[in-house]
Amino acid sequence: MSALIEGRNAVTEALRAGVPVSAVLLASGAKGAPVDEIRRLAAARGIGVRTVSRRVLDERSVRGAHQGVMAEMAPFAYTPLAEVLERVGEREASLIIVLDHITDEGNLGAVARCAEVAGADALVIPKARSAAVGPAAYKTSAGALAHLPVVRASNLVRVLEELKETGYWAAGATEAASTLAWDAPLEGRIALVMGSEGEGLSRLVEKTCDFTVRLPVAGRVGSLNVAQATAVLALEWARRTSTGR
Amino acid sequence: MSALIEGRNAVTEALRAGVPVSAVLLASGAKGAPVDEIRRLAAARGIGVRTVSRRVLDERSVRGAHQGVMAEMAPFAYTPLAEVLERVGEREASLIIVLDHITDEGNLGAVARCAEVAGADALVIPKARSAAVGPAAYKTSAGALAHLPVVRASNLVRVLEELKETGYWAAGATEAASTLAWDAPLEGRIALVMGSEGEGLSRLVEKTCDFTVRLPVAGRVGSLNVAQATAVLALEWARRTSTGR
Repeated sequence: MSALIEGRNAVTEALRAGVPVSAVLLASGAKGAPVDEIRRLAAARGIGVRTVSRRVLDERSVRGAHQGVMAEMAPFAYTPLAEVLERVGEREASLIIVLDHITDEGNLGAVARCAEVAGADALVIPKARSAAVGPAAYKTSAGALAHLPVVRASNLVRVLEELKETGYWAAGATEAASTLAWDAPLEGRIALVMGSEGEGLSRLVEKTCDFTVRLPVAGRVGSLNVAQATAVLALEWARRTSTGR
Repeated sequence: MSALIEGRNAVTEALRAGVPVSAVLLASGAKGAPVDEIRRLAAARGIGVRTVSRRVLDERSVRGAHQGVMAEMAPFAYTPLAEVLERVGEREASLIIVLDHITDEGNLGAVARCAEVAGADALVIPKARSAAVGPAAYKTSAGALAHLPVVRASNLVRVLEELKETGYWAAGATEAASTLAWDAPLEGRIALVMGSEGEGLSRLVEKTCDFTVRLPVAGRVGSLNVAQATAVLALEWARRTSTGR
């Protein structure tokens, strides 16, 4: 089922952020400047606007706060891993970021933003027990999800095995690692595995990694959030390659 | 005036996050597991709980969604710059992060989290046209604001001048810089100036900086958000000093 976006602000933002929208639904009689702006944005992107009775919106609403405006998000087009690997080809430096069961969709989008800025070739997420790409991820990705290939995999361990066979080093980020990121071989073909917000890396995933790395912690609080940590590690990879120039 | 925190979840989270709370207000008759938990958390932190009539809460409510529970945030205790400099003393390496009119309180908290993890000595924000430390900043700071000194200044240019006189190099982060962060002298005593979400560095602040730095952008989207960029730059400073070990 496709995700529904409800309410004037949310629909306006989704249209501006490039969220793939299949249709906009307006309650008959809805008008005013925000509705005009939604019509304008939809027209500019070639998205159809349907007028329906308010009762139809009430019935489809999950949050009950549609304000006479809804948008249907088109299913996100995930990319097969084989296609990503074909595009990378024999390139010596490539970064693929693997998210080990991130549950917050906003974090997923924020990680996508870092990945795209650093020049990563793809983001890999698991099919089960993980946030998927929806409107909230689009928002925090600041447009990155319109460009960055995202692979959805049944089994992260198998993905890592396949990447390792293709010349990638699997680097797991965990606070328990003994090696600092600066001292680890974070260059060339790297599959960077980031753990979930609460649990970190799962045991089997960590075991599959070639090495683990940590970031320094000088303060008393603990650690960066997952997107901030991804930014530092992905740009550490970029620093050592031509994409960091 | 002190900030008010409204609603069961918001008050519970604020108490858990260590937000300085001066008092919890409960509507007479409010009960149930969430209310019991709020009483328990307040007692554990020595915070008084007052029972008032629901009408009192209605009158003080800004958002009209208090659910019978409110908390008064105690005024945040900002630190004078002189006190920060006294604590730093003659230390050779010190990082102070200066935020040039960040308007989103969540971003302010996220930057504080990065600053604390990297071992910064303080965060400096301007008094006017800037987010201040409130409950939302506490939340995204993940506890960092309970430890990191925050200086609130009338004039950022004057702060930078004072820091420069005390041996700091003022480094401004801007996408327009010609020098990559990796090639800049980001070590020793650094005042790292981060621009606002929309506008970047203001002209006078940028002119006061000794040098400017940028991060590489390999993708098509643009740039990291301000907290992600702060994470990368602050940890680049840490990488070159003992706090990054």
